[in-house]
Amino acid sequence: MKYLHTMVRVHDLEASLDFYCNKLGLTEVARKDVPAGRFTLVFLAAPGDREAQVELTYNWDEEEYSGGRNFGHLAYQVDDIYAACQRLMDAGVVINRPPRDGWMAFIKSPDGISIELLQKGKPLPVKEPWASMENTGTW
Amino acid sequence: MKYLHTMVRVHDLEASLDFYCNKLGLTEVARKDVPAGRFTLVFLAAPGDREAQVELTYNWDEEEYSGGRNFGHLAYQVDDIYAACQRLMDAGVVINRPPRDGWMAFIKSPDGISIELLQKGKPLPVKEPWASMENTGTW
Repeated sequence: MKYLHTMVRVHDLEASLDFYCNKLGLTEVARKDVPAGRFTLVFLAAPGDREAQVELTYNWDEEEYSGGRNFGHLAYQVDDIYAACQRLMDAGVVINRPPRDGWMAFIKSPDGISIELLQKGKPLPVKEPWASMENTGTW
Repeated sequence: MKYLHTMVRVHDLEASLDFYCNKLGLTEVARKDVPAGRFTLVFLAAPGDREAQVELTYNWDEEEYSGGRNFGHLAYQVDDIYAACQRLMDAGVVINRPPRDGWMAFIKSPDGISIELLQKGKPLPVKEPWASMENTGTW
């Protein structure tokens, strides 16, 4: 048995790819347009870790997806959590839970999917401006 | 960057572990009881694939989690999809989408989290009773 992917539905594929690839840093591994079913599947993975994927399901016809509390989040390990959060902030992403502890941060996808970022190895030394940065919204 | 886990919230830890471990076949990799926060985290993984995990979050105080359409599913590859589904059925799990094609099946966790099972390699030859088994509910 082997883990393959977590699937999340997206209502704007372009905005989602901008978020997951350009901002979060995932890579597009595969894409499948299915005109007969009027949907597109895009498989994303962290660079150098193609095995564990996120599958974006984009239905061509308008659908509304509301957040469900029984879905938690996707989690990714990063080499430098401060650098990762700074890059995301610079790209206009709200850091809902800043890495005050040098260890953990949360952001959200355009569809409200929570994404957890965790520092690789030990927490980094606590430092500003992160240490005193307040939470924003939920995650 | 490296994928770590997908987190899902569960309202009955015992029923969830029975489902994810005893029925689905995942293994408990780690557990963390946090009395101060009144929650327990349990990390599960497919045997032999400890890197990609599912994190169960169990809040000790009653909470209700409804299904959210923006969360899709967890997906696992299996060696024999017929054998996997038979084992699940024998354990009392409804096969919401039977593997009629020898390739893909869907079941649900006690909290309504969709779980996709995909045949490793090529689809198996189509065969009964699977080929004529109807869908049940949603997934």
